[in-house]
Amino acid sequence: MNPTLAIHGGAGTMPPGSMDPAAYRAGLHRALMAGHKILAADGPAIEAVTAAVVALEDDPLFNAGRGAVFTRDGQHEMDAAVMDGATLGIGAVAGICGPRNPVLAARATMEHSPHVLLVGLGALDFLRAHGVAFAEPGYFDTPGRREALRTMLAAEASFSADLDDADRHGTVGAVALDRFGNLAAATSTGGMTGKLPGRVGDTPLAGAGTWADAACALSATGHGESFIRIAAGHELSARMRLAHEDLDTAAAAVMAALAAVGGTGGFVAIDRTGRVSLPFNTRGMYRGFVHADGAAWTGIYQEAMQAWS
Amino acid sequence: MNPTLAIHGGAGTMPPGSMDPAAYRAGLHRALMAGHKILAADGPAIEAVTAAVVALEDDPLFNAGRGAVFTRDGQHEMDAAVMDGATLGIGAVAGICGPRNPVLAARATMEHSPHVLLVGLGALDFLRAHGVAFAEPGYFDTPGRREALRTMLAAEASFSADLDDADRHGTVGAVALDRFGNLAAATSTGGMTGKLPGRVGDTPLAGAGTWADAACALSATGHGESFIRIAAGHELSARMRLAHEDLDTAAAAVMAALAAVGGTGGFVAIDRTGRVSLPFNTRGMYRGFVHADGAAWTGIYQEAMQAWS
Repeated sequence: MNPTLAIHGGAGTMPPGSMDPAAYRAGLHRALMAGHKILAADGPAIEAVTAAVVALEDDPLFNAGRGAVFTRDGQHEMDAAVMDGATLGIGAVAGICGPRNPVLAARATMEHSPHVLLVGLGALDFLRAHGVAFAEPGYFDTPGRREALRTMLAAEASFSADLDDADRHGTVGAVALDRFGNLAAATSTGGMTGKLPGRVGDTPLAGAGTWADAACALSATGHGESFIRIAAGHELSARMRLAHEDLDTAAAAVMAALAAVGGTGGFVAIDRTGRVSLPFNTRGMYRGFVHADGAAWTGIYQEAMQAWS
Repeated sequence: MNPTLAIHGGAGTMPPGSMDPAAYRAGLHRALMAGHKILAADGPAIEAVTAAVVALEDDPLFNAGRGAVFTRDGQHEMDAAVMDGATLGIGAVAGICGPRNPVLAARATMEHSPHVLLVGLGALDFLRAHGVAFAEPGYFDTPGRREALRTMLAAEASFSADLDDADRHGTVGAVALDRFGNLAAATSTGGMTGKLPGRVGDTPLAGAGTWADAACALSATGHGESFIRIAAGHELSARMRLAHEDLDTAAAAVMAALAAVGGTGGFVAIDRTGRVSLPFNTRGMYRGFVHADGAAWTGIYQEAMQAWS
């Protein structure tokens, strides 16, 4: 076995002036190391993806946990999911604001409830009762995200012109293969700046933005509704299991299906041999992976693909 | 083309003394005729499945719309979804109480929002703004459901002993093929009696309890978490598209996957030739179908399968 972890921190146009590439790469690297530490100690894939996503949630640069974007009415509504390919266990939460790390709320749902998906206030009651750590008020707020909402509401007609869309509707996620051959996936998002309250995207929907089974694991980012319409995560698995496609072929087919419904974004995926695929059809996708030996790679734009492919 | 509609009204043990079979058959027949009328007039599959589900929601015998079960805290939380196989358009709502027909709320989400899934109060704001008809207070309540919650809470340890589980966590749904060769699916549920508030099952999740594309359409009922874990709806399609299985073979494989995760329930499915499959692994499933000529069949228990297979 070749324990491997791949992560993403959102896909989009990422206008060069809008962000500091080194800061994003450093954030990705920290998340890779957080997950790698677990895999290197023969820990399970589900723990590695959770640790990597916790690191990305804690980093205000990425739109998940601290640094989540604001809804139209100035609130946060966060979604997260985990899936353990070894058991087909799933835990997901949607439309919540409270738990410091939404991905840990998803883990608690998987481990302590008979359910797969909990939403809203009912989810918060359950999570509080099960000891999930909540953040102090204001923890998730960052000046940049508040400014982004203001800018968007002030100039709604042209909001896409000068905002980084990876920033505006980014997502973070991870997939891993552990030493025992098990796969897992985790995804977390703050949603879209200025979104309609109550909107749930692909992140917490198993089979769409998050999937793991014995064939592969996937975590997606981008226009969530498109990933739901093509059941992206489960389609990747189905192509590998039923049409015997390899990971790259299946990933290309999923990206073609995404384009066919007009969707933009990308995903990170891994198969049971530890091969990774990180396709996207936007200008860039914050992403990286780390192998068993600790050798890590991070990338942002399309050009950088050549460094590892 | 052979326009056909198949429906279900929940799966479970259905203890003989607990219900009047003739009343359920009459309710199924009314729903079949509501959808058939549209198909017979060359209407689209998405309209036919919506009309059939509206009829089932309006019938207090079935756990959706009027007659929805109560959550643990004495509320209703309804979920519904529609999917149009012609366009891969999806609309779904979860955790709502207000719109008289949750399936029409799902249709409004598909038609008037850029989103696929809306939950809770945010969903209600959107639906109100788009003119979806709301029910008067108390409309959804029925004495039998309130009694079921009381019975369950009073004797929680043994609640499964004397309650009909189709009644306790039933779902209604429909799939159709129209004259133009398009497929569609719709599903609606009141959830589970005494469920944890905030729990979302497979009904509103495209790819799990509801799916329609160019290959097939499916609507499921039963233990929702199991249907999510096997991505039942999308797996059926994937087997037909990628492994070239026929509808019955693919349906049997999905039922095997359901059993492998310990799941109970069933589904109705249809392919592009109008062939229907209505498998279940419970004692019974309220179900029926109607062909282009208006010939309709309804069934409840396993034995009755022989009448049409």
